[in-house]
Amino acid sequence: MKIPHKIYLEEDQIPKQWYNLRADMPQKPPPLLNPATGKPASLADLEPVFCTELAKQELDDNTRYTDIPQPVLDFYKMFRPAPLIRAYELEKALGTPAKIYFKFEGNNTAGSHKLNSAAPQVYYAKAQGMTSLTTETGAGQWGTALAMACAFYGIDLTVYMVKVSYEQKPYRKAVIETFGADIVPSPSMTTEVGRAILKEHPGTGGSLGCAISEAVEKSLQTDNCRYVLGSVLNQVVLHQSVIGMEAKIAMEMIDEYPDIVIGCAGGGSNLGGLIAPFMQDKLLGKAAPRIVAVEPASCPSLTRGRYAYDFCDTGRITPMAKMYTLGSGFIPSPNHAGGLRYHGMSPILSQLYHDGYMEARAVEQTRVFEAATLFARHETILPAPESAHAIRAAIDEALLCKETGEVKTILFGLTGTGYFDMNAYMNYQGGQMNDTVPSDADLQKGFDSLPKL
Amino acid sequence: MKIPHKIYLEEDQIPKQWYNLRADMPQKPPPLLNPATGKPASLADLEPVFCTELAKQELDDNTRYTDIPQPVLDFYKMFRPAPLIRAYELEKALGTPAKIYFKFEGNNTAGSHKLNSAAPQVYYAKAQGMTSLTTETGAGQWGTALAMACAFYGIDLTVYMVKVSYEQKPYRKAVIETFGADIVPSPSMTTEVGRAILKEHPGTGGSLGCAISEAVEKSLQTDNCRYVLGSVLNQVVLHQSVIGMEAKIAMEMIDEYPDIVIGCAGGGSNLGGLIAPFMQDKLLGKAAPRIVAVEPASCPSLTRGRYAYDFCDTGRITPMAKMYTLGSGFIPSPNHAGGLRYHGMSPILSQLYHDGYMEARAVEQTRVFEAATLFARHETILPAPESAHAIRAAIDEALLCKETGEVKTILFGLTGTGYFDMNAYMNYQGGQMNDTVPSDADLQKGFDSLPKL
Repeated sequence: MKIPHKIYLEEDQIPKQWYNLRADMPQKPPPLLNPATGKPASLADLEPVFCTELAKQELDDNTRYTDIPQPVLDFYKMFRPAPLIRAYELEKALGTPAKIYFKFEGNNTAGSHKLNSAAPQVYYAKAQGMTSLTTETGAGQWGTALAMACAFYGIDLTVYMVKVSYEQKPYRKAVIETFGADIVPSPSMTTEVGRAILKEHPGTGGSLGCAISEAVEKSLQTDNCRYVLGSVLNQVVLHQSVIGMEAKIAMEMIDEYPDIVIGCAGGGSNLGGLIAPFMQDKLLGKAAPRIVAVEPASCPSLTRGRYAYDFCDTGRITPMAKMYTLGSGFIPSPNHAGGLRYHGMSPILSQLYHDGYMEARAVEQTRVFEAATLFARHETILPAPESAHAIRAAIDEALLCKETGEVKTILFGLTGTGYFDMNAYMNYQGGQMNDTVPSDADLQKGFDSLPKL
Repeated sequence: MKIPHKIYLEEDQIPKQWYNLRADMPQKPPPLLNPATGKPASLADLEPVFCTELAKQELDDNTRYTDIPQPVLDFYKMFRPAPLIRAYELEKALGTPAKIYFKFEGNNTAGSHKLNSAAPQVYYAKAQGMTSLTTETGAGQWGTALAMACAFYGIDLTVYMVKVSYEQKPYRKAVIETFGADIVPSPSMTTEVGRAILKEHPGTGGSLGCAISEAVEKSLQTDNCRYVLGSVLNQVVLHQSVIGMEAKIAMEMIDEYPDIVIGCAGGGSNLGGLIAPFMQDKLLGKAAPRIVAVEPASCPSLTRGRYAYDFCDTGRITPMAKMYTLGSGFIPSPNHAGGLRYHGMSPILSQLYHDGYMEARAVEQTRVFEAATLFARHETILPAPESAHAIRAAIDEALLCKETGEVKTILFGLTGTGYFDMNAYMNYQGGQMNDTVPSDADLQKGFDSLPKL
């Protein structure tokens, strides 16, 4: 049987449960710590910030499968199932014997996988009687996804958008506003954290960590309001497991199983979701796929960071998590256009990496955009720069197969489309893109911001 | 059985033939005329401009079904089948008893249905040994689609883009360049037509008709080069029939048949493609769906134009076609942001409209963007302004059903996504969008440009 280009599951094959990787990890991620007490964060600690149901998911290391609420499934049906695609044309262009598959999560107006977690987070907030939410967004994908979910369920939203992205991407703002949300460039004068950062660094382009601080502060000041976060957290990795579960079902339908699973890694939620069922196989000894995280050389938390407790935000008001981190004070060079700017990495993925269950590599952005352009021309999809990190690694693996003659099956996550990242593409095409790799001294400045425990 | 949100055909259900509406029309569209002789254009007249196979398709009123070449089917598989979607959430928001379906052609990087014709046009050119192509683009959708197809088949491309769109949509340019094509704002100094227009109207924002003239002139000056056009032509309507045929198969799978088929109408190719198999039923007396063309009030060729022979381009170098037209000298107000700016209408659709087989209505752009925003918030897809004309009419029909209690089945064409049209959305959100309806005197100026036969 010739495998079709695109494998779509039927609507009723969309997974009805999320899978919690922590349930099968021999070493659980260390607990979140309350920064005031230094003790493990309790449900009561988290509830002022997060919805109760989400706070429970955050802390639950043991429940293997969680039912996806019907209203969330109803929303998933608006944009899922997402296709698994065989990259026949890319294979041909590379002349590789490898079989390259990608799970494409960008076929929706958010342009990314972020809707998978936006849907449940908004649903649980609505169910708990909240009337508004706050969040941050970097490149704008999470903000768009959340605005869409808030429009769908009928709840207000304020988005703090990293200022440099806000300025580079005016159309993201317009999309978010089309879905009825408010958007504020961060750092802003609307919060204490923002005012303090602006006083110290008046010209700053902002950071995801700073935008998080502002969104959390704003939510705490507002009645019936909660804060929601699009990556890093355990709950988000849980929701994103739908990516990997769908991919695995689709691969089973064509009698395939990946030798290598590749995902880009910023905060880690897409990667955690994509690898979830394959990592489960690995943890349970059922299979041994290689699992590869790809991060930007300009923000290399796994490959050059420290495995330490750190704040999730610049303002140091969130619980502390043990993770690979560059320090919440680390701000990537403004030359870096490829997304994945977060200083830390999902505690789940950090533990798995620490325990040797996955690999990590850092790639420079000109090579990322080279891969993005090659992919677009052959596969007809314009990838998000973030996603193109995974494409780069998949191409490199496929070229290795060409050298060795091995017929490996490669699965990578194509998390989204790049329609709102054309400034970066223009810089690349115009030869104006530089590779910015932080020096050891740059990294040391970030490490100096780590909390002393 | 509950009908799923999205109905995807299997890859091997993609139609393997295009359907030629003209074969079943009792009155064929009058022939193209050679402007030099005033006589019906022959194959020899068309061949300097169009590829031979496409020129044959242009002139062929009789062949009912044409095999889609295998390399074109191979490209179709990169982005087809396109889903038929039940707009459950929009129905709920409207409180209508109507069942609303839409055929969504925007789930690809071109963001529209234009790839359906770009693929065969580039394929036939390549097969004939051409090394480059020229074309024009208005909003940029056709230029993007063609750049993608040219990258896929490996052939050079120069795109003349209507200057006002070029300036409003810098990111379209970046996408087209990512796929390796050259792009020139029109009118330009690169052609005689362009230089003459710039001399007469130095500040003009250009028009599709003018960009066509430039692209045709350029192709005639270049060896092994042909011109390709994304709408209006019979060949394009033929290729776009894949939209309607897929939609009809999908509806049959769920035991549905539309009472009303609605499409937006610029040059007419999407509409002609969407309605093709339903119009066939109507022409053959098998069914009697209402068929509705929706055009902008600022460029109302069907509702306020004349049915007359006219040039397809401002420079008057193309063959003349009998069509509903505002005159090739008509230029829509620069306030008009909703696309569908072409002065004429597909000769096939013009004849069908003239013979009473379809209806037409004109809508004002603020009501179009109102519909677009409502649709986005409930159906999670950000529509192209062009497509939103059809949404507007579908909503209006559904609201009529609400008044009468009729359970009608409405099918409309969602031709594309609006990610590159955010300037227009911003103007709408900011209350800066005006409705511009040409006065009778404005129209008269266009009619004065009609050729005297």
